[in-house]
Amino acid sequence: MENYKKIIEDIYFEIKTIDDTGEIANYIPELANVSDHNFGIHITTIDNESFGIGDFDKKFSIQSVSKVFALTLAYKFEDAKLWERVGIEPSGNPFNSLLQLETDYGKPRNPFINSGAIVICDVLLSHLKNPKEDFLNFCKELSNNSSLNYNEKVAQSEKKSGYRNSALCNFIKSFGNIKNDVDEVLDFYFHICSLEMSCKELSKISLFLADDNFTSHKGNKILTMSQAKRVNAILLTCGFYDESGEFAFRVGLPGKSGVGGGIVAVHPDKYCIAVWSPKLNKKGNSYKGMLFLETFTTKTASSIF
Amino acid sequence: MENYKKIIEDIYFEIKTIDDTGEIANYIPELANVSDHNFGIHITTIDNESFGIGDFDKKFSIQSVSKVFALTLAYKFEDAKLWERVGIEPSGNPFNSLLQLETDYGKPRNPFINSGAIVICDVLLSHLKNPKEDFLNFCKELSNNSSLNYNEKVAQSEKKSGYRNSALCNFIKSFGNIKNDVDEVLDFYFHICSLEMSCKELSKISLFLADDNFTSHKGNKILTMSQAKRVNAILLTCGFYDESGEFAFRVGLPGKSGVGGGIVAVHPDKYCIAVWSPKLNKKGNSYKGMLFLETFTTKTASSIF
Amino acid sequence: MENYKKIIEDIYFEIKTIDDTGEIANYIPELANVSDHNFGIHITTIDNESFGIGDFDKKFSIQSVSKVFALTLAYKFEDAKLWERVGIEPSGNPFNSLLQLETDYGKPRNPFINSGAIVICDVLLSHLKNPKEDFLNFCKELSNNSSLNYNEKVAQSEKKSGYRNSALCNFIKSFGNIKNDVDEVLDFYFHICSLEMSCKELSKISLFLADDNFTSHKGNKILTMSQAKRVNAILLTCGFYDESGEFAFRVGLPGKSGVGGGIVAVHPDKYCIAVWSPKLNKKGNSYKGMLFLETFTTKTASSIF
Amino acid sequence: MENYKKIIEDIYFEIKTIDDTGEIANYIPELANVSDHNFGIHITTIDNESFGIGDFDKKFSIQSVSKVFALTLAYKFEDAKLWERVGIEPSGNPFNSLLQLETDYGKPRNPFINSGAIVICDVLLSHLKNPKEDFLNFCKELSNNSSLNYNEKVAQSEKKSGYRNSALCNFIKSFGNIKNDVDEVLDFYFHICSLEMSCKELSKISLFLADDNFTSHKGNKILTMSQAKRVNAILLTCGFYDESGEFAFRVGLPGKSGVGGGIVAVHPDKYCIAVWSPKLNKKGNSYKGMLFLETFTTKTASSIF
Repeated sequence: MENYKKIIEDIYFEIKTIDDTGEIANYIPELANVSDHNFGIHITTIDNESFGIGDFDKKFSIQSVSKVFALTLAYKFEDAKLWERVGIEPSGNPFNSLLQLETDYGKPRNPFINSGAIVICDVLLSHLKNPKEDFLNFCKELSNNSSLNYNEKVAQSEKKSGYRNSALCNFIKSFGNIKNDVDEVLDFYFHICSLEMSCKELSKISLFLADDNFTSHKGNKILTMSQAKRVNAILLTCGFYDESGEFAFRVGLPGKSGVGGGIVAVHPDKYCIAVWSPKLNKKGNSYKGMLFLETFTTKTASSIF
Repeated sequence: MENYKKIIEDIYFEIKTIDDTGEIANYIPELANVSDHNFGIHITTIDNESFGIGDFDKKFSIQSVSKVFALTLAYKFEDAKLWERVGIEPSGNPFNSLLQLETDYGKPRNPFINSGAIVICDVLLSHLKNPKEDFLNFCKELSNNSSLNYNEKVAQSEKKSGYRNSALCNFIKSFGNIKNDVDEVLDFYFHICSLEMSCKELSKISLFLADDNFTSHKGNKILTMSQAKRVNAILLTCGFYDESGEFAFRVGLPGKSGVGGGIVAVHPDKYCIAVWSPKLNKKGNSYKGMLFLETFTTKTASSIF
Repeated sequence: MENYKKIIEDIYFEIKTIDDTGEIANYIPELANVSDHNFGIHITTIDNESFGIGDFDKKFSIQSVSKVFALTLAYKFEDAKLWERVGIEPSGNPFNSLLQLETDYGKPRNPFINSGAIVICDVLLSHLKNPKEDFLNFCKELSNNSSLNYNEKVAQSEKKSGYRNSALCNFIKSFGNIKNDVDEVLDFYFHICSLEMSCKELSKISLFLADDNFTSHKGNKILTMSQAKRVNAILLTCGFYDESGEFAFRVGLPGKSGVGGGIVAVHPDKYCIAVWSPKLNKKGNSYKGMLFLETFTTKTASSIF
Repeated sequence: MENYKKIIEDIYFEIKTIDDTGEIANYIPELANVSDHNFGIHITTIDNESFGIGDFDKKFSIQSVSKVFALTLAYKFEDAKLWERVGIEPSGNPFNSLLQLETDYGKPRNPFINSGAIVICDVLLSHLKNPKEDFLNFCKELSNNSSLNYNEKVAQSEKKSGYRNSALCNFIKSFGNIKNDVDEVLDFYFHICSLEMSCKELSKISLFLADDNFTSHKGNKILTMSQAKRVNAILLTCGFYDESGEFAFRVGLPGKSGVGGGIVAVHPDKYCIAVWSPKLNKKGNSYKGMLFLETFTTKTASSIF
């Protein structure tokens, strides 16, 4: 940890002041209010050592990062049957594209583009009694953290302007790959995306993907080792939309980004690291977040490649 | 090695006799002549221990696997400038698709789909005096193996039926992303694809991607550590066309397949393993090869995830 | 008229008994209940002579044919400004495709594919006080026929299963090209499509497109001569989705089809002819209807070409 | 004719001096040398009256306009069988797009986009003994004009830079829809496109499409009445690439444009009119040519709609 700590500090101060050419996401009005000066990092190792710097303890909207936990719960319920509903291939298209859905007859390419996450939400709705509450409880167990919550304002804000996601959900429904009511699926999806965490919380909740022997504080095994490895594989090939190749190339870790500016990356058998900086590059991923992680894995020689 | 050996033997005998639902590639007439009973595996560790079974010593047409070595040489010449000519993102489309080239103005998505490999060949033509000879010598140095050679018959066979590749090359040229003569680029491309190796040779020549300290027998460092890791990242996200996600998910290693039925996979810091079985699944990857590798990384718990 | 009459009778009896390889539209449950034996034809000339045969007096769901009258009213309101919201080019894609909308940033190719008609409905909503009532009144004036009405059951049936249209409307809204509430636009759209007419009524209501000097019984000029000609031009190039070229080629008249099995065709300066037969070919156009019209324009040598 | 003459003169002088926002085609180097001041018009009626103004007697490269005559000859040879090789639907894409060819398995949408014209050339090669000579003789007979010729310089210039067309031809060949040698097909295609005519010649040679009773001076019927009407239908829906709808809408006549800046338009039973002005709009059609024809059909009320 001392080694990581020193390197993280160095990179943090180096990147903190550079010119950030990114822009804050503005298509969700409520998200646009966040100060773009926020910059935080937090690492947690599988030995439960941890270190944070900057705004690592401030909560932010994790947005698409929550797709990881939704997928995890759906995978737990359905195991390999899940892949009949959603693919595991990178899409080569932006996160909210409808193009491929048409040629693929309503089966999203992977669970991390919006269409795929919407199908995952539909799968969860079919399994959960009180979907929003149950999913939140699952996240609380995953992280041993009872303070987690949705941001109702963000959920409502996204709902009001979520025409693209509504188009996706209706489109998939027209192919028969949504089983529940469109409005309920979307409401659940927007709530999941409104989940808030700090970098500290985000790096901790993701440990089940890094630690082969992970069990929750309640003593539950979340995924089998093989399942966890497979989630990591999907994260690596699909976690950054049409910049997944770039992230694998530059950073070399499975990871997931959100338009709130958060990124979590997983080094199997070693650590989880979360970064937050709200300004996004053109592909919708945190500009400073990607830069930080690239420098970090280079200096620690800890890419999985 | 003893551990690997036992597991490889077990899987080999288990898979050898199963019903192979794949089909031999028939679009290159000369390739269709290969017996579909061939099945070989060879592993080489970074400590230079090695083990093979089945037809591991028989030469076959490595086809697209040679794109790895072409990329390596071009990357050596151009370093990061190379990515101005070809991308590093998975394409989400079949290996010989023209669709994305039109929307991307002639810049192929990655160096492992045909369009990308054709651009790589064009880059090499601009650097090499005697392209075919020089590239062969590079492969000989990489593998410390002077017996490597092209199969002229296969190269000619592919040339005669290579209308799709000719379309790709002319199309890219129309966007200005091919600098040399179209016929010379294609002749070079078809020769590179006709390279022949055995599983043994293939697992050995790929060691420079697994071993951080690799130097050739002539004492040359081939790629920097960072470059080698980045080639592995591209292999993982793009090495299996529109089945790259599937391979990452099931096998969990960087790798590359060819329509000759060969696959090479790399475990950084540990080993390279090559498999050969000519019958291909619908995505154009060896059916038994993928099955073998999936079982192998599961039983050895040696996916990178 | 005598000439037309004889030819229509001959073709009617010839086609009535042939094997109809088409199928009734089944995606709108309420439409699937219609008997597929229905077959009617009615012609009305600009001199107001008319002749019908078969089920020419039975009402059916005109569906997409109503897009012609919606376009007409919107064109009346907006004139050339309308083309900022919707194009006038054939799409080369099926009627409910979302593909082009993405590359065209939410501007539908033409007013006769679903996306275009939805935008037209949105334009009308911005102009009309009581949209459904006002549009119905416009149709009544056009046809001097106070018996026209929507079929509420069909409208509700389409609403319940209209996920694709809902996807289209939300998608266009996400690009800003829908100004009103999505649900209101769709409700209006589904009602317009549920309009019912007989062949007789349909051939009569379309006369304003054939007769340069047309004025309604209230003395109103509907479109200028130039506007009417332009609507005919759009009908010819776009009236039959991705079979528009086929219809121009075989029939040679501006026309519009609906999934209810109705087709209306216009011969400028001469006549309007309506045909109804519910079974549709693979492109969604009435099988017997197209066959009838092709034979009719060939025998009367009355294509516009 | 006196009526036409006066109107043509008026429009000619009105448009001659307006600011032309178009640009000369520069992708065929040899074409870029033409003076952009050229502006000519010529009309020929089916009664063989004629009138020209401006540069109506100067030869220019008719380019894609020659696709009309190639289609005519192929249609004569193959009749309806021709449509197994090439479609009759507007493409909705630019003239040299490869996108649809992939989804349509190598069958071009229509004979007037480049891919379609290349297939037509392939069809002709299978029928003609001396293709270039025989096609030229066909054009000479059509026009009763022995002075017609290819421009060898233009043909060679296009050949040297014709990578896109070479891509199209190889791509179609890969689907099996080119039967002859790729280089021979392209050589024939480039020659056909290099045909030169004046507006006067162009309006005269097209009369067979306007006059139902047309026979050549040798006494040959070129197409049946039904075939000629069908060619006109394809011209109307497909003659102007992805601006076909626009031309139908604004001008209202079947017609064909070429990147040399020529346009020919046909009024069935009345006249053919040819316009030439080299500067092209963004869709590749003559800017002044389209403007002239729009004004002409409006003032003469002679659209077919």
